[in-house]
Amino acid sequence: MNEKIVIAVDAMGGENSPNKIIDGIKLVLKDNSNLYFNLFGKSDQINDLISSNDLLNEKCQIINSELVINDNESPLQAAKKNDKSSMWQAINSVKNKESQIALSAGNTGALLILSKMILEMIEGIDKPALAGLWPNKKGMNIVLDLGANIECSDKNLIDFTYMGSSLYKSLFPELMPKIAILNVGSEEIKGHDEIKKAYKFLKENKINDFEFMGYVEGNHITEGEVNVIVTDGFTGNIALKTAEGTANFVTNILKESLNRTFYSRIITFFNYINFKKFKDKLDPRKYNGAIFLGLNGPIVKSHGATDSFGFANSIKMCKKIVEGNLIEKIKRNLN
Amino acid sequence: MNEKIVIAVDAMGGENSPNKIIDGIKLVLKDNSNLYFNLFGKSDQINDLISSNDLLNEKCQIINSELVINDNESPLQAAKKNDKSSMWQAINSVKNKESQIALSAGNTGALLILSKMILEMIEGIDKPALAGLWPNKKGMNIVLDLGANIECSDKNLIDFTYMGSSLYKSLFPELMPKIAILNVGSEEIKGHDEIKKAYKFLKENKINDFEFMGYVEGNHITEGEVNVIVTDGFTGNIALKTAEGTANFVTNILKESLNRTFYSRIITFFNYINFKKFKDKLDPRKYNGAIFLGLNGPIVKSHGATDSFGFANSIKMCKKIVEGNLIEKIKRNLN
Repeated sequence: MNEKIVIAVDAMGGENSPNKIIDGIKLVLKDNSNLYFNLFGKSDQINDLISSNDLLNEKCQIINSELVINDNESPLQAAKKNDKSSMWQAINSVKNKESQIALSAGNTGALLILSKMILEMIEGIDKPALAGLWPNKKGMNIVLDLGANIECSDKNLIDFTYMGSSLYKSLFPELMPKIAILNVGSEEIKGHDEIKKAYKFLKENKINDFEFMGYVEGNHITEGEVNVIVTDGFTGNIALKTAEGTANFVTNILKESLNRTFYSRIITFFNYINFKKFKDKLDPRKYNGAIFLGLNGPIVKSHGATDSFGFANSIKMCKKIVEGNLIEKIKRNLN
Repeated sequence: MNEKIVIAVDAMGGENSPNKIIDGIKLVLKDNSNLYFNLFGKSDQINDLISSNDLLNEKCQIINSELVINDNESPLQAAKKNDKSSMWQAINSVKNKESQIALSAGNTGALLILSKMILEMIEGIDKPALAGLWPNKKGMNIVLDLGANIECSDKNLIDFTYMGSSLYKSLFPELMPKIAILNVGSEEIKGHDEIKKAYKFLKENKINDFEFMGYVEGNHITEGEVNVIVTDGFTGNIALKTAEGTANFVTNILKESLNRTFYSRIITFFNYINFKKFKDKLDPRKYNGAIFLGLNGPIVKSHGATDSFGFANSIKMCKKIVEGNLIEKIKRNLN
């Protein structure tokens, strides 16, 4: 697994870029000597950050981009910047086979539309899906779609199961994907037509690549009995954000309860290491990175507001996806 | 507000009934001398529990039911038991105006179907909604629909805003309902057609009964900027269960982190009162009770697995709903 891997990075996307991008690359290079980077963006800014570091100079190639896509731009505005933007050039570098995967912390909608324009969909797939990692009691889930498609047909949901299974096998090669469809109950009669049709198809057309477990409900996502959860982008996005809001709400109540009095603050201080372990386990930077599935090339979206540690984790995700031959796995599953 | 209120109770629904039902009634009677109960169920079982208590004997009337609806029965099986089941009789007591509201901890699907059959929909409302309380950083939300309708039209969503606003005003008479539709983004162009049409209508047709705040995302549910959140039953059910699962997941990680070593268990012990405050704030029994809206009479569903404290809270909810003239408020809003 120590072949050279080249990652195209949109060095200008997200908050505090390119600084956090370069710092993130520094963090991963310590343990990953086979990684190389094509950095797209304002070359003078990027150069200032890497010129004094020999390792970065060796591993990174800077390609100047005239334009940058901002977070508040519409996908249409982004597309009009054409091949002059750092995001476009990073994606195009995958198409040209100069890079094996592209990574951006920039505008999600623009990244999705530009990726579709440049890489096009895999034959037989109608809609791309946005897949993300979601922790459960036993390890990690993949959940998709997290918001690329507001409405999904049964065909889309079936495609998502194949693609989600391939992604899971790429990221966790030693584990068997256990796939389920998110629904309002576990009985066969529950849910709307698209879900029921997808369920029926997956039950009747077993493939060896994954185990189809039927339906799960929202409270089962964190249980760990399944590890790939398929849903439409509307439901997936609301489930994800509701979970984020709830985790935030619960930890806030905890903080308030533990900081009420001087006495309790002292006690809490003595428990610092355990609270740190608690915080670490829930740290969203540890599973930063959403993957666009269904395109003729792998694209990863880092959270825009993450820091260098979070960005480093999405680089590691890129490495696993390339090593796992994600696109080949998806194409094989579809056949 | 001290007029006599009569609540019809299906004394046989849910785990550990009728015991928890009677214990729950005992708890509320301490502070609510204007409450009276029509108890439907196995009269010998119920009588054993109340006969030795003078207050219970004064406040409760027992009506014997031949049959009980079980949790694993389909709504059709439940309907076939006709007027012989305790659930049917409790609902019918609202229709006959012998009780002002009905409460059951039994089979949700059966309760919904029987309520529709017996009470019928309010004129102009096509679909009932299941509304529940959901805590936020500033107080309490109402979220609807939590699962009565898998698919909802724009008309249904608009009806839900009117009914949700009426419910909020009944439960929190001193506060102004701030209503929002759950969506994947806050911009006007986001979401599917039904949502966009409902948004447009509510923006253009303002009524004085509530403030329409537009869209909110899943992570905003717990923020407290709005207090009535409208969505279809599929999304609402998944959001609710995802939130329950997440709260459970986070508190489990906390427990594990704090009980790792003997030292940390000691420290945690000294912080007992504060952890208790934390647990109390998240106790789901405190907001136990979902309300069926859209019927010609108020019906409340208690969680089947709750205990007497949780059941007591759903009795208190019934009291507020009757005092707040919920059905009148809904009918006024619809005109």
